[in-house]
Amino acid sequence: MEKIKLENLLELIENKKYKQLNEILVNYNPVDISELLEELDTKEQAIIFRMIEKSKAAEVFSYLDIDYQKQLVKAFTDREISQIIELMYTDDSVDFLSEMPSNFVNRLLNYVDSETRHDINQLLKYPKDSAGSIMTVEYVSLKEEMTVKEALAEIKAKAINSETIYTCYVTERRKLLGIVSAKSLIINDENTLIKDIINRNFISVNTNDDKEDVANLFKKYGFIAIPVVDSENCMVGIVTIDDAIEVLHDETTEDMNKMAGITSDDRSYINKSVWDHAKHRIMWLLILMLSATITGTIIANYEHAFSAIPLLVAFIPMLMDTGGNCGSQSATLVIRGLTTGELSFSDIFKIIWKEFRVSIVVGIALALVNGIRMMFMYNDLQMAIVVSSSLAFTIVFAKFIGAILPLLADKAKLDPAIMASPLITTVVDAFSISIYFKIATTFFKL
Amino acid sequence: MEKIKLENLLELIENKKYKQLNEILVNYNPVDISELLEELDTKEQAIIFRMIEKSKAAEVFSYLDIDYQKQLVKAFTDREISQIIELMYTDDSVDFLSEMPSNFVNRLLNYVDSETRHDINQLLKYPKDSAGSIMTVEYVSLKEEMTVKEALAEIKAKAINSETIYTCYVTERRKLLGIVSAKSLIINDENTLIKDIINRNFISVNTNDDKEDVANLFKKYGFIAIPVVDSENCMVGIVTIDDAIEVLHDETTEDMNKMAGITSDDRSYINKSVWDHAKHRIMWLLILMLSATITGTIIANYEHAFSAIPLLVAFIPMLMDTGGNCGSQSATLVIRGLTTGELSFSDIFKIIWKEFRVSIVVGIALALVNGIRMMFMYNDLQMAIVVSSSLAFTIVFAKFIGAILPLLADKAKLDPAIMASPLITTVVDAFSISIYFKIATTFFKL
Repeated sequence: MEKIKLENLLELIENKKYKQLNEILVNYNPVDISELLEELDTKEQAIIFRMIEKSKAAEVFSYLDIDYQKQLVKAFTDREISQIIELMYTDDSVDFLSEMPSNFVNRLLNYVDSETRHDINQLLKYPKDSAGSIMTVEYVSLKEEMTVKEALAEIKAKAINSETIYTCYVTERRKLLGIVSAKSLIINDENTLIKDIINRNFISVNTNDDKEDVANLFKKYGFIAIPVVDSENCMVGIVTIDDAIEVLHDETTEDMNKMAGITSDDRSYINKSVWDHAKHRIMWLLILMLSATITGTIIANYEHAFSAIPLLVAFIPMLMDTGGNCGSQSATLVIRGLTTGELSFSDIFKIIWKEFRVSIVVGIALALVNGIRMMFMYNDLQMAIVVSSSLAFTIVFAKFIGAILPLLADKAKLDPAIMASPLITTVVDAFSISIYFKIATTFFKL
Repeated sequence: MEKIKLENLLELIENKKYKQLNEILVNYNPVDISELLEELDTKEQAIIFRMIEKSKAAEVFSYLDIDYQKQLVKAFTDREISQIIELMYTDDSVDFLSEMPSNFVNRLLNYVDSETRHDINQLLKYPKDSAGSIMTVEYVSLKEEMTVKEALAEIKAKAINSETIYTCYVTERRKLLGIVSAKSLIINDENTLIKDIINRNFISVNTNDDKEDVANLFKKYGFIAIPVVDSENCMVGIVTIDDAIEVLHDETTEDMNKMAGITSDDRSYINKSVWDHAKHRIMWLLILMLSATITGTIIANYEHAFSAIPLLVAFIPMLMDTGGNCGSQSATLVIRGLTTGELSFSDIFKIIWKEFRVSIVVGIALALVNGIRMMFMYNDLQMAIVVSSSLAFTIVFAKFIGAILPLLADKAKLDPAIMASPLITTVVDAFSISIYFKIATTFFKL
């Protein structure tokens, strides 16, 4: 598949060669069209958008970033927008509507059919991070007494799109009894009864389950879709794998941001204003800056030490940086392990014991290298011993703190990602400076 | 679905209640069985493993961690192992075999049928990070002249498993002509010709394409499988979504590790020995420790300054930490943007301009808060001005360096993740200390 060049497209629009334009667009993947639209201005977007066949246009719309969706709807009438809403998957409509002002949503819902309105109103009620908020209500529901032939006819009648038909759900009075894959419908004789091929050992989630936990089930079991039931075990919708991948992706971005002390939202880097960027970064910077005052105060208390031996000051950056780096290594490994489910709080002693031994190995190695370097540069054995032993203690402490803080955060139902590098660095700094000056003053009898 | 309790299982094994055990296992998901096996010792594993129906056992084996696979095969004869190999997906067999000693592999391949042997040998040849290395050779291939009915019969004959049949591939002399989804086979009349429902606007990848790029296509387009062709455009296999999710997952872990200065491999935290943990962390720590010497040397050069005004030393940690934090915020945002494809090198000027404005806002805010704090604590306006202005310059520089280093790494075809926090902290430290003492010596005329 070749990519359309933006210039060619603009040329076709300008010269009103709509027939040619249509021929190009008809062969185009909705994802690629939505990407193209994001490069155009609103007027051109509207021209292209109106040319695309309605149900494909709805799909294109669902792939647009929310900022572009907001911009594009300004060019449309309420009736046009409501048509798009009806043709989109309910979960995509809800994603869009939940970002719009409520008077706009209410006005729009007057235009859509009552079933869609009901579904949308239902979905808008689920909490932001729940399975309910990412599920769609489009799925194929079968009865136990159906034959394979009838089941296939049912799919044909409902046929929505691939990911929503490859698993069908067998219900009785809305209670979920089991699942049947499209594969078993294809490979079994057409007179086979559904109840003979039903899989009753299925996994389902509840509307209120955390969406990240749901996404992790997809990763673990390799599902394409997973059924969502309410508190009475009635089938209410399905979560599909594309939404699960998006959840995993957003979760990773959020974790990485948190680990760097950034509050994040769903907007992209480029689309976010300078003020919003600054706002999302400043809080942690302030907290960390003010807590670094503690380390400063400790240093100020040892003024007599570095007034006597000024060289002591020269090793502060190396101690602080190495401590911070060692701490973030351990914190990163533990945080990632907790996110992926590989580690849990119950592993705490195993982790502490492992980190302790690792820190001994690393501490000795780094202390030796540093000692040798200092002997070369300053030829001062006493100073080398003071700095290298402080370094080794700092490393052991840093790895302990780096491993334990995320575990404690997890236990306290906080996101372990906030216990990452910056916070740990600050804690480790205070420790490393204290131990350093304590050792130095003792050793040099200051 | 209820979870089996480990104790109950062990009790059944001990009392040789194999019939009851079998009844439990038959209803169990292969993923859950493999998780259970990892809790048992080799003898118990072998008992359970031999009870499971052969093709399910092969699936269970493919979900085991490589360390457990290695352990388990010791309990089996070569013939038993070769049976498992034949029943597994080729990509899973290859994952396992590529971790085994080559004499073991060669001995084993004598037992498997010649087709499997050929496929495995082919796949073992693809480079480690290529699409070829994660693809499977099991897929349904159709001809243009077939009818829907014939196509469905072909699937029935081949029926392997869900994810591999939901997209079928239409070929002619092994050249890939187009794709047909199981959905269109179900919804179209049985006499429809494949050539009338074929989708020729498909996306395929090459065996040598980077597996991360392939995985990103799944995320972007929402595919369940993607065809892999060789350099002559002949169909050689497919990559399925479960493998794509695994690639995305491993890539994230690797990025997070790199950003914390850890060399990583595929083994889990718990399974890795202390020596390997130490080995994977020590290299970057050494590099960063030795480069921190530069900052130390700069400080040593200003001995006259802090001998005259010792209080100057107390602000070093705050300046260093804030610089490091500001730099890693920018670096994290840019690295993540590059990984997800949201940002690219061509955005460099947009990014620099945005970071510059953000750093001005953040710099002024932090400098003010710090200035006020210092006035309260020390009531020394001159000192407050020196520290706060150094802080503001440090922030602007840190955000510039944090944004630009990952972009340059990307341009140089290096992984931007190596340009993360630790390295940036070291660079920013040297700058912040220099600018601080430069301003202090000028201001206080030292």
